[in-house]
Amino acid sequence: MRIGLLGGTGVEGRGLALRFAAARVEVAIGSRSRERSTQTARQLNGILGAECIRGATNAEVLADSEIILLTVPFDKAAALVQSLKQDFRAGHLIVDATVPLTFASGRAEYFEQGDRSNAELLAAQLPPGIDLVGAFKTIPARILAEVDLPLDCDVFVCGDSQSAKDRVMAVASLIPSLRPVDAGPLMNARILERMTVLAVQLNRRYKSKGARFRVVGI
Amino acid sequence: MRIGLLGGTGVEGRGLALRFAAARVEVAIGSRSRERSTQTARQLNGILGAECIRGATNAEVLADSEIILLTVPFDKAAALVQSLKQDFRAGHLIVDATVPLTFASGRAEYFEQGDRSNAELLAAQLPPGIDLVGAFKTIPARILAEVDLPLDCDVFVCGDSQSAKDRVMAVASLIPSLRPVDAGPLMNARILERMTVLAVQLNRRYKSKGARFRVVGI
Repeated sequence: MRIGLLGGTGVEGRGLALRFAAARVEVAIGSRSRERSTQTARQLNGILGAECIRGATNAEVLADSEIILLTVPFDKAAALVQSLKQDFRAGHLIVDATVPLTFASGRAEYFEQGDRSNAELLAAQLPPGIDLVGAFKTIPARILAEVDLPLDCDVFVCGDSQSAKDRVMAVASLIPSLRPVDAGPLMNARILERMTVLAVQLNRRYKSKGARFRVVGI
Repeated sequence: MRIGLLGGTGVEGRGLALRFAAARVEVAIGSRSRERSTQTARQLNGILGAECIRGATNAEVLADSEIILLTVPFDKAAALVQSLKQDFRAGHLIVDATVPLTFASGRAEYFEQGDRSNAELLAAQLPPGIDLVGAFKTIPARILAEVDLPLDCDVFVCGDSQSAKDRVMAVASLIPSLRPVDAGPLMNARILERMTVLAVQLNRRYKSKGARFRVVGI
């Protein structure tokens, strides 16, 4: 199995690439610029001490991967999906990790887009037959990047296709100390995206960089 | 300090009454009917093996308590606040534990009320000078009632008055194994109420009755 990260050179993409590569998953990180993604891959392989991650263009990542993580800033995701419309094919499973938040008032706030989550808005843009699952939305990028630090938290996976969710949960469970939780239908991204806003605010209030969630009792 | 519970004969009210009384806080549970609240108090004192909880009418609870927990079903809360409008006085601190959820489709869903949380809607109904804080929204009632079971979770406290939040967090910290977390302004009840919807859904999916949240990393 191969995991590709669209917009994988950002902080969330780099963190997830490191965690998956450390779990011996084949990882390709994509960017508009192959030069940039190759450079990022080289840097990450240096951290890992092994050649586990390769850089490519976003289109090449789509051509080569089955599970595709969207790790661009939320306000770039729709345009990226549009620009790659010709490159999606049946069998692709898109994992949306974006969170619509704004810092307009100096504090992280949820960026309302009607009553829909960013995951739902992106799903509506995909060609028919391509599943989109929301996941990794609540895991702080800066904690992902500290690859030796146990995550000790849950990854909430939401989507309308149970088999797609099951595949993403199986992949996520390869990362040690991360527990996949089936968080219901895609519309629950409305909850998960807001939880991330809370976590970002908690980071600031409690001078942390890694506020994340664990469900007790399940 | 005395804690009063408006609508304290329901499952959430009974659970919180037990937890606070077990922590040696003076507790009064209110109901429209003093007979019912007295009967509930007797039953709870039987569980605790001590006379810690007393029953009263909702108006008596308001007259005698400083911190007032709203533990009625969300769709009864506004009418209850209206009916007690004459009984609120300066110094009262209202703690809203309600969660607007509906089971219309057979699954717990968030009951949208414009873009406002139930906490915000209730705060707007209170006389001026009365603070309302949202708290205990994400703690499952059925787990509260098992008073010997460690909660091992966070209680998220949101509100627009820092001193009111601090008072509620101080009181909440009396309950062992419960960590108060300052969850920001009252509008964050929009996040917390939705998290409860997720927890209720997780209970069903994972055949639990006590899904609750803990923030890791703060």
